[in-house]
Amino acid sequence: MSQSKDRSPNVVWHQAQVTREMREQQAGHRSAVLWFTGLSGAGKSTLAHAVEERLHLMGCRTFVIDGDNVRHGLCRDLGFGDDDRVENIRRVAELAGLFVQAGVLTLTAFISPFRRDRAQARELLGEDFIEVFCDTPLDVCEERDVKGLYARARAGEIAAFTGISSPYEAPEDAEIVVPSGSEPIEDSVQRVLDYLVAKQWIKGVSA
Amino acid sequence: MSQSKDRSPNVVWHQAQVTREMREQQAGHRSAVLWFTGLSGAGKSTLAHAVEERLHLMGCRTFVIDGDNVRHGLCRDLGFGDDDRVENIRRVAELAGLFVQAGVLTLTAFISPFRRDRAQARELLGEDFIEVFCDTPLDVCEERDVKGLYARARAGEIAAFTGISSPYEAPEDAEIVVPSGSEPIEDSVQRVLDYLVAKQWIKGVSA
Repeated sequence: MSQSKDRSPNVVWHQAQVTREMREQQAGHRSAVLWFTGLSGAGKSTLAHAVEERLHLMGCRTFVIDGDNVRHGLCRDLGFGDDDRVENIRRVAELAGLFVQAGVLTLTAFISPFRRDRAQARELLGEDFIEVFCDTPLDVCEERDVKGLYARARAGEIAAFTGISSPYEAPEDAEIVVPSGSEPIEDSVQRVLDYLVAKQWIKGVSA
Repeated sequence: MSQSKDRSPNVVWHQAQVTREMREQQAGHRSAVLWFTGLSGAGKSTLAHAVEERLHLMGCRTFVIDGDNVRHGLCRDLGFGDDDRVENIRRVAELAGLFVQAGVLTLTAFISPFRRDRAQARELLGEDFIEVFCDTPLDVCEERDVKGLYARARAGEIAAFTGISSPYEAPEDAEIVVPSGSEPIEDSVQRVLDYLVAKQWIKGVSA
C-alpha cells in the first residue's frame, strides 16, 4: 500500500498491449477469415467444420462462426427481414475481425447471398478476407433438401428463400471455388488447405 | 467427380466438431472470462491489458474486449442511452462467450455499473464468469481524471455519468477485488494470476 504513495499522481501507466502479430507468432500461423458462401444445402457448414478439424489437428487455433452460435446469442435481437439480414452479416464480419485480432483462423458459414454484403465484409477485413464459394448447383441443393426447407419454400411457406424466391448472387472473385456438389468432401478440404499453404497463411505439413 | 456418383444421395455427412474441450487441451489451459468492472478511471483497461500481457508471456491464448474494439465495430449501431447500454453489455457477454468456446482467456473492460447487467452476463457465462472489481474510490478516479471526463460531467456536459449523475452499483460477490487505487499494478496483476492458478484455470509457473 505504502509503495503507491511514492508515485506521482500524474503517472500515466504504460498500457500493455499484446498485438495480433504477437499472437500469430505464438500460434505459429497467421490468422484470417475463411468466408464460406453458397446456397442453403451447398455444404458450407459441413465443409467449414471439416476444414476446422484438419486445421485443429495441425495445431492451429480455429473457430467456426455459423448460425448455430450467433443467431441464438449475439444476433438474437435480429429477425430475417432485409435490414436485419444485412445487420447480421455486418456483425458476423465485425466478430470475425475480432477473432482475427485474437490470432484465430476463423471460418464463417452463412448463405450471405448478396454481393454488396460480402463486399462490405471484404472491405472491413481487407486482406484477411478469403472468400470460399461452395458452388453447388441449385438442383443438387434442392434434391438434397436436408432440412426440408426447399420443399417448404416451394410451397410458399418461407418468404424470400434464397434460390427460390430471393436471388443468390454468386461470387465473381472468390479466392477459392469448391465444387461441393460433385467432389468428395476430403478433396474440398484439401483444396482449402492447399490455398492456405500456397498463400502462406499456414505452414504445410505432410499429412 | 465420378467418386461422388457412387454415394447415396441420402448420406448425411458426419459433422466434424472441434469442441471447447479440445481447444483447451491444445492450449494447455482452461478458458474463462475475466469481467473487469469499476468506475471510469478505476484502472480496468490498464489492469486487463497488464494481466493479458503476463498471461500471453506464460503462453496462454488471450484477448481483451473493451470499448476501443467494440464501440466502433460490433456495437457501433448503439448509442449511450439506457437501452443501448444494456444491449452493449449483452453483446459483450455473448461475444465473450464465443471467445470462451474458442478456448481463449478473455478479459472484458467496461464500467458495467448495474448489478442487473452484470448478473445477466454471469447467468449467460455461468461458471466461466469471473468478476474482477477494480475498487478505486470515486475521489481517486476523479482526481486522476485521465480523460477529463469527470470535469465535464461536473460541468453538466455529460449526461448520466457514472459516479456523478448515475449510480455505480458495486459488486457484492466479485470473485476478485482489486484495490487499484492503492496498490502497485504489479500487485494487482499478481492478485488476478494467483486466483486463476488457485482455481485451476491456468497452471502456475515460477515467474
